[in-house]
Amino acid sequence: MSGQVDKVNRAKNFDSSAYIDVIGKQARAAAVEMARSSTRVKNAALNLIACNIERAEPAILAANGKDLAAADKFEEAMLDRLRLSPERIAAMAAGLREVAELPDPVGETTGLRYRPSGIQVGQMRVPIGVVGIIYESRPNVTADAAALCLKSGNAAILRGGSEALKSNAAISSCISEGLREADLPAKAVQVLDVSDRAVVGALLKVPQWVDVLVPRGGKGLIERVSRDAQMPVIKHLDGVCHVYIDAAADPNKAFDVALNSKTQRYGTCNTMETLLVARPIVELVLPRLIEAYRRLDVELRGCTVAKKLHPDVMLASEKDWYEEYLAPILAIRVVNDVEQAIKHIRKYGSKHTDCIVTEDFSVARQFTAEVDSSSVMVNASTRFADGYEYGLGAEIGISTDKFHARGPVGLLGLTSQKWIVVGDGHVRD
Amino acid sequence: MSGQVDKVNRAKNFDSSAYIDVIGKQARAAAVEMARSSTRVKNAALNLIACNIERAEPAILAANGKDLAAADKFEEAMLDRLRLSPERIAAMAAGLREVAELPDPVGETTGLRYRPSGIQVGQMRVPIGVVGIIYESRPNVTADAAALCLKSGNAAILRGGSEALKSNAAISSCISEGLREADLPAKAVQVLDVSDRAVVGALLKVPQWVDVLVPRGGKGLIERVSRDAQMPVIKHLDGVCHVYIDAAADPNKAFDVALNSKTQRYGTCNTMETLLVARPIVELVLPRLIEAYRRLDVELRGCTVAKKLHPDVMLASEKDWYEEYLAPILAIRVVNDVEQAIKHIRKYGSKHTDCIVTEDFSVARQFTAEVDSSSVMVNASTRFADGYEYGLGAEIGISTDKFHARGPVGLLGLTSQKWIVVGDGHVRD
Repeated sequence: MSGQVDKVNRAKNFDSSAYIDVIGKQARAAAVEMARSSTRVKNAALNLIACNIERAEPAILAANGKDLAAADKFEEAMLDRLRLSPERIAAMAAGLREVAELPDPVGETTGLRYRPSGIQVGQMRVPIGVVGIIYESRPNVTADAAALCLKSGNAAILRGGSEALKSNAAISSCISEGLREADLPAKAVQVLDVSDRAVVGALLKVPQWVDVLVPRGGKGLIERVSRDAQMPVIKHLDGVCHVYIDAAADPNKAFDVALNSKTQRYGTCNTMETLLVARPIVELVLPRLIEAYRRLDVELRGCTVAKKLHPDVMLASEKDWYEEYLAPILAIRVVNDVEQAIKHIRKYGSKHTDCIVTEDFSVARQFTAEVDSSSVMVNASTRFADGYEYGLGAEIGISTDKFHARGPVGLLGLTSQKWIVVGDGHVRD
Repeated sequence: MSGQVDKVNRAKNFDSSAYIDVIGKQARAAAVEMARSSTRVKNAALNLIACNIERAEPAILAANGKDLAAADKFEEAMLDRLRLSPERIAAMAAGLREVAELPDPVGETTGLRYRPSGIQVGQMRVPIGVVGIIYESRPNVTADAAALCLKSGNAAILRGGSEALKSNAAISSCISEGLREADLPAKAVQVLDVSDRAVVGALLKVPQWVDVLVPRGGKGLIERVSRDAQMPVIKHLDGVCHVYIDAAADPNKAFDVALNSKTQRYGTCNTMETLLVARPIVELVLPRLIEAYRRLDVELRGCTVAKKLHPDVMLASEKDWYEEYLAPILAIRVVNDVEQAIKHIRKYGSKHTDCIVTEDFSVARQFTAEVDSSSVMVNASTRFADGYEYGLGAEIGISTDKFHARGPVGLLGLTSQKWIVVGDGHVRD
């Protein structure tokens, strides 16, 4: 951090607004430089940062060890998110190099067409400016988020969890050093190094310095940021994902998709939480699926029809249909048809990812048109809802908003398009 | 308005939250219907509304007469915005028919490509949902905004100025009737019919019902909405637009563009407010331009260099560089080169529309890449920054934000894109 920030930081009564003001001004100045950096220089910086991270492995592990020691009272799931290993550090470096390989979105000019007036009008893709990211625990987000912001020509302000302060500072040094080595402004990525919680509040109040905020973490954090931020937010709330097995489904595809969507991984946002089955196909698919889930120890909570099929199925309550379990628990509901399935998804879903299994073309067409989710799937596991699987290379998050970017947000989501008008002295009549 | 709303409305202590809650629920339900309406039906509704407005001309003029009578203490500019005439009513109907002729953006699916996993991934354009629009005075916005929201498959909540309440109610009847005639939900467009100011505050607090807000009006309104809204906002703040005449400009093109950008209309947001001239070309272009501006009675406020060129040029203050005059006043500043011009625009501009006049290819390339405005122009009048001129057909506003939609916002700005995944029983490994 700069001398200016140090001074603010060391003040007796820490002034979070003054601190964020300094950080914000520095980010804005760096953003101007980043916006005009060439693809070659940005890629060089990403590769240099990757090398620095590999070289600093002992220092990063030592810092992480201190964070872990201070966090020993936390539960294991949280410690696991916080813990770095040689493998995780190697994965960070590999991630940076992968982002360097992605095409640069900045400057792409599309649709330049002549208008009747004689001017040409088109759109040019440009960085958004300063991206603020607020996240928890996982120190690898520091490297991943920095990579995406840099490649898309933005400056970044990163606020990690206070429990990862030392780990993030060690990674931050590698980033600043790489930026300097590539002749880019070191302030293009600033990792906030104070644990004071008022800093988050201050960050929400500076639309003049931060153009978009990306909160990544628990529901409480995301709700607070959405409510109080004075700038646009790219947010990911719940992933209450559905698979609907239509009457016209191929039973084998239905089995594969419904099993994979729930059990390939339990804790991810694109995991199915509720299985909807059309009444006419219940006998053909559900008993076999229930057996398979039970073999994997998945707890089942069903509607009255589903409950009758197997003694292990407990009765679901109304609350279950809203639930994002993130665990080996599944809600099962029998519905009449695609209309009722769509209605269920509209009422209980979270606009994340929803799938239909069917061989009926018109039913598939209706489902894809009418289900209002960031990803709508036909005959494919909900687990595919992911930036890498979609070919975006890497994602800054999965947006459940409908504004700006939706679903997996990659480099394009960190850019905007401005209009370019070219004439030859043209004036308006 | 529905019986439910009437009841709320008539309550002794008007409860704006309860009122907006009813309106919002109705809008959400209508949005579901609108999203699955066919292009044919939406176009039919727009054409029916146009006919209804033409047929209701006497009723609309009578209602407008009452609004005008009640507003007689207001200044003439405001009365002019409020006043309807047979010509203005005909223009409203024509606008509706023009929107009906535009291509329907909804359902367009792009980029559907195979991924290495075997799934196909693409994006489908879909309505945003419920669009809230808060505007002042001009009753024609009621028809224009309704048309764009309906065509893009959204539901709309329109809050006009309290001084136009009766005019807007008359237009609103034509809209509801047209929706009913076309078998679309009459609540797809709801024009708020209460003048209570608390209604605006309540509208800002319902992200569950309103997906995006578009404030159109004075700076105070827009700042308040941006600060307090709990949903995304498409906003248009200042238009401090620049023309920079480069040393390598063609003097005749420079004259035409600089004159047209300021004097074709004074009160519009894309009118030039500050003229920047490169020092080497000052003698060649500025005296002739100053003469032309003075013939049109444009007041000139210049830097010290510009002031010396003509006795009518007054000295500009620092404040002038920030000013959106919206009047026959122009600030003039002599700069060294394109670098200094870009710096001036970055510091004093409002990211709206900025133009360079030059024949130097590399200088034009630098200006278009580095000026961070919603429209960047080369050798063309800033007055071209307009939805119709860009071929968008009509605009809901001109956004000075960098998020989601930028510059003139037409039908596309009222849609989002969701991901479509198609497989054949594919699961993730």
